Amino acid sequence: MCGIVGYSGKNEASSILVEGLSKLEYRGYDSAGVAILDDGKINVSKCKGRLVNLENKLKSSPLKGNVGIGHTRWATHGEPSDVNAHPHNNNDNTISVVHNGIIENYMELKSWLKSKGYKFVSETDTEVIPNLIDYFYNGDLLDAVMKAISKVEGSYALGVVCSNEPNKIVAVRKDSPLIVGAGKDENFIASDVPAILNHTRDIYYLKDKEFAVLTSEGVEFYSNEGEKIEKELNHIEWDANAAEKGGYEHFMLKEIYEQPKAIKDTMTSRIIEDQPIKLDDINITKEQIENIEKIYIVACGTAYHAGIVGKYAIEKLARIPVEVDIASEFRYRNPIITKNTLMIVLSQSGETADTLAALREAKSLGARVIAITNVVGSSVSREADDILYTWAGPEIAVASTKAYTTQLITMYILALFFAQNKNTLTNEEIENIKADMLKLPEKAKEVLDNKERVQKFASNTYMHKDMFYLGRGIDYAVAMEGALKLKEISYIHSEAYAGGELKHGTIALIENGTVVVALATQNDLYEKMVSNIKEVTTRGAKVLGITVEGRTGMDEFVDSVIYVPKVNDILLPVLSVIQLQLLAYYVSVEKGCDVDKPRNLAKSVTVE
Amino acid sequence: MCGIVGYSGKNEASSILVEGLSKLEYRGYDSAGVAILDDGKINVSKCKGRLVNLENKLKSSPLKGNVGIGHTRWATHGEPSDVNAHPHNNNDNTISVVHNGIIENYMELKSWLKSKGYKFVSETDTEVIPNLIDYFYNGDLLDAVMKAISKVEGSYALGVVCSNEPNKIVAVRKDSPLIVGAGKDENFIASDVPAILNHTRDIYYLKDKEFAVLTSEGVEFYSNEGEKIEKELNHIEWDANAAEKGGYEHFMLKEIYEQPKAIKDTMTSRIIEDQPIKLDDINITKEQIENIEKIYIVACGTAYHAGIVGKYAIEKLARIPVEVDIASEFRYRNPIITKNTLMIVLSQSGETADTLAALREAKSLGARVIAITNVVGSSVSREADDILYTWAGPEIAVASTKAYTTQLITMYILALFFAQNKNTLTNEEIENIKADMLKLPEKAKEVLDNKERVQKFASNTYMHKDMFYLGRGIDYAVAMEGALKLKEISYIHSEAYAGGELKHGTIALIENGTVVVALATQNDLYEKMVSNIKEVTTRGAKVLGITVEGRTGMDEFVDSVIYVPKVNDILLPVLSVIQLQLLAYYVSVEKGCDVDKPRNLAKSVTVE
Repeated sequence: MCGIVGYSGKNEASSILVEGLSKLEYRGYDSAGVAILDDGKINVSKCKGRLVNLENKLKSSPLKGNVGIGHTRWATHGEPSDVNAHPHNNNDNTISVVHNGIIENYMELKSWLKSKGYKFVSETDTEVIPNLIDYFYNGDLLDAVMKAISKVEGSYALGVVCSNEPNKIVAVRKDSPLIVGAGKDENFIASDVPAILNHTRDIYYLKDKEFAVLTSEGVEFYSNEGEKIEKELNHIEWDANAAEKGGYEHFMLKEIYEQPKAIKDTMTSRIIEDQPIKLDDINITKEQIENIEKIYIVACGTAYHAGIVGKYAIEKLARIPVEVDIASEFRYRNPIITKNTLMIVLSQSGETADTLAALREAKSLGARVIAITNVVGSSVSREADDILYTWAGPEIAVASTKAYTTQLITMYILALFFAQNKNTLTNEEIENIKADMLKLPEKAKEVLDNKERVQKFASNTYMHKDMFYLGRGIDYAVAMEGALKLKEISYIHSEAYAGGELKHGTIALIENGTVVVALATQNDLYEKMVSNIKEVTTRGAKVLGITVEGRTGMDEFVDSVIYVPKVNDILLPVLSVIQLQLLAYYVSVEKGCDVDKPRNLAKSVTVE
Repeated sequence: MCGIVGYSGKNEASSILVEGLSKLEYRGYDSAGVAILDDGKINVSKCKGRLVNLENKLKSSPLKGNVGIGHTRWATHGEPSDVNAHPHNNNDNTISVVHNGIIENYMELKSWLKSKGYKFVSETDTEVIPNLIDYFYNGDLLDAVMKAISKVEGSYALGVVCSNEPNKIVAVRKDSPLIVGAGKDENFIASDVPAILNHTRDIYYLKDKEFAVLTSEGVEFYSNEGEKIEKELNHIEWDANAAEKGGYEHFMLKEIYEQPKAIKDTMTSRIIEDQPIKLDDINITKEQIENIEKIYIVACGTAYHAGIVGKYAIEKLARIPVEVDIASEFRYRNPIITKNTLMIVLSQSGETADTLAALREAKSLGARVIAITNVVGSSVSREADDILYTWAGPEIAVASTKAYTTQLITMYILALFFAQNKNTLTNEEIENIKADMLKLPEKAKEVLDNKERVQKFASNTYMHKDMFYLGRGIDYAVAMEGALKLKEISYIHSEAYAGGELKHGTIALIENGTVVVALATQNDLYEKMVSNIKEVTTRGAKVLGITVEGRTGMDEFVDSVIYVPKVNDILLPVLSVIQLQLLAYYVSVEKGCDVDKPRNLAKSVTVE
């Protein structure tokens, strides 16, 4: 997830681009850069770090010109650095490109272009694009971009300028957002509305594989087949603050809704039908995998809960014993580690102090470490032996949502990868799970499209002071995450319990009207879970049941039932947790809490 | 723990003894029996099971006579059965004995008596006593009992009758309770006051190794040196209900106060200075211990929390990897078990359904199972390969206290036993820990003797709706048990958190006045824990700190500090949990809750 912006008009492009990028910094802040056309030449200024670094650079070395493109980066391919910052140019600096998305076949394109004599300076996937456009350029930038795009697989929103056509920006998108803003004698492109809201409220929304050609005079649109098309102009009524959240009331809700895409992105190039799982930054060998005697999964907070699901997945699919530990506890446990111990650390930010310390402890004792993180170039990614990124994009809300679900996806990918290497599953079994994984983005969207019931339950229960979450097996892990979400943003004392454990003490807290959220999604545990639900309804609890579509009869003994679409049981946490995220969100909203910035909490805990 | 009663008077002994036993059934209900003198002959009636079985037996075959002794049993040596029931007689049935306690050197005495031609019919330790008295008997029962007692090591309260001296009962005690009741033309002995409260309120309390000789006419007391002594008569004012609880307001408080003795009993014959640890019912070989690759500890509720302490102890002292699991979860996890997997199950009652099922699951997969239980002859003790009993005596209060601390003791014993067999500790290190363990009964008593501070904290906080317990490492395990205790009996929503984990979400719940109990007993984690305490005090929490004696300065940043005596860090849970038991107890009392029988809970959970 990156932010792009483009300007063609009568004013100085530099300040307009930087101002636009400042509104997109929520989309990434690893590096920033601009390319501005001046007197038939493209000048680029870019640097690592927050936008302020670029601003300072432009202050000391200003770039003149009225047409340009800008970019703020969230690293995926290639660590955050000056050279990996966008824009990226072709070899003779006549074409410059900003890109948001992932070019899946960039390795292939890169070697093909190298065979044609092209040189590459960065580690990015993006750099193939200006060179590909250069290859096809024959005096018509739009034509060259169209030809280049026809070779590209993956997701992209692109802004392209060319020194031979100095008033023009060509833009196109697929599976990544891009809008076009129409002003008076000036036109814009941007990843998101707020970037240009100070200049215009008249917006065109590009569909997948639609092309736009902007000059200061106007905008033209073309279909993927090269035919000129008309597009509807939309007038934006939101204020700038709402616009930043893409029309959502809070970043958290926006991020909840970004999950179908985040899940899809995280599987991209890793889970492909009928192809063995290949993982780019995982160098562990088949032999090393076969020799693993024990896996420690170590994390904090929400990531710890993803680790617990990971334990279920790895033990079940790959039959390797897994112990999950809280990072702050692991460090001081004097853990028993050998060279055949594998450690998996999970950290959204990659900077969580306790997790980082646990990683170092394990490495010093000889363990191999796989890091799962959302931030390329973060400390854990630099120090781990192997890396598996969650491609969730920046998460702004303190309460983690899309980072969690993408952590689940990476745990499934790892479990299948181990199973594939250890032959603990047949190829058919692996393919079946993969097929269901590939359905998850669409099924997650179904959950989001049917949020009324959970929203209603929230509006009926938000005034309660305590709430309990019950589940057995993998549902218990999801219950923990659901309880944490509610705690974090609504300040309701919620607690998760294993269904069978409640009666060993905590059931004393259940009285008339106590709210209980009961997950019963797992087929082999359903009957047992029903017994546990009845133990609490008998004592007066008000129960929200969560089960899979097709399962009937639950409404006879609970107050409200919500359903998740049916996929392989082990994958259900990805869908059921979305219901719990929505529940926490709507309870928090009903209570009037500060959803995105709950009291006492920080997004990334870099202290112990 | 068993109950004994004796009568010498003018009325029929049988009904008086049975009525007395009915008041002592809280001390045991595995079997019951009486021995009554009739016409120079001793007649015994006894049978397995609750007292009602004996009553029915006496209804169909009554025993006549005015002098007799009775017993209700809590099995320690030998399973509950007719033959192991008390009273036990000498070979020619002229001497009969009831006994509460444990004869530590009974194996040695038994073989010595066998060498003299004595035959044994039961598996009990008790049966050596009537035969030993017989060996020394020379026309004077008191003299013979004194001589027998001089050979006996361990704890005992004894009532002895002899057919040659048919109006007499000889009684003595050491480390087990025994009182003498003085009536009009009738006198009594009993383990506890309520057994005789319907007949007299005039009581003599025997001290250790004091002897009493009762007839219908009067009572005489003798010192261990055989000198006649005078004893003070006490008049009991309690009502019968209070008397049953030994003067304590609730069984729970009584059981909290029984912990020094329960801890001592559980170490008896197992932890002896300068002697290797020997465990009677543990048959696992040194080779098997060396081959253990992994230990699963499986339990529910409070016993699960004892298991978590066990993990720390075993991993630290014996360096064997341990995974602790909730029994209801373990069963459905499809656990990875090999023949080198050892399972340890903990269950006070030995009948916990989920624990029993987990035991069976593990056995069917080839694991060896060690059971830790409080009930001899219970299902888990019958089905496990090895057994380690907690000698806590019957626990009546639903909220477990002495069962938990004795479970901790057995976990330490096992950890040291493994360490001894695996040579992971030097002999000196083992002896140092053992020396500190042997101090625990006395140190536990110190904690109980200084309960004012925790009682005061309870009276200042009982009205709160939520409470948090924090700890790191082994203190975290104790925090979990403390939170559960409070939940169970006070219905306050309390929850335990690892000190370092709080800031990953739950700290959002901390506001001005929130009550936090913070354990900081561990030397190597103290500074880290102080940081975590300050995180909550900064946000307004009201903190009770728990640390070790000699640690100064904590009172500068928390509201109240309570101390536990200093012993080896790993043993501190035994002492710190007593503070948390007292806290829960006094909060419950202040709130007016039903301490011994909290709502929704059962003592032994025999359903899933």
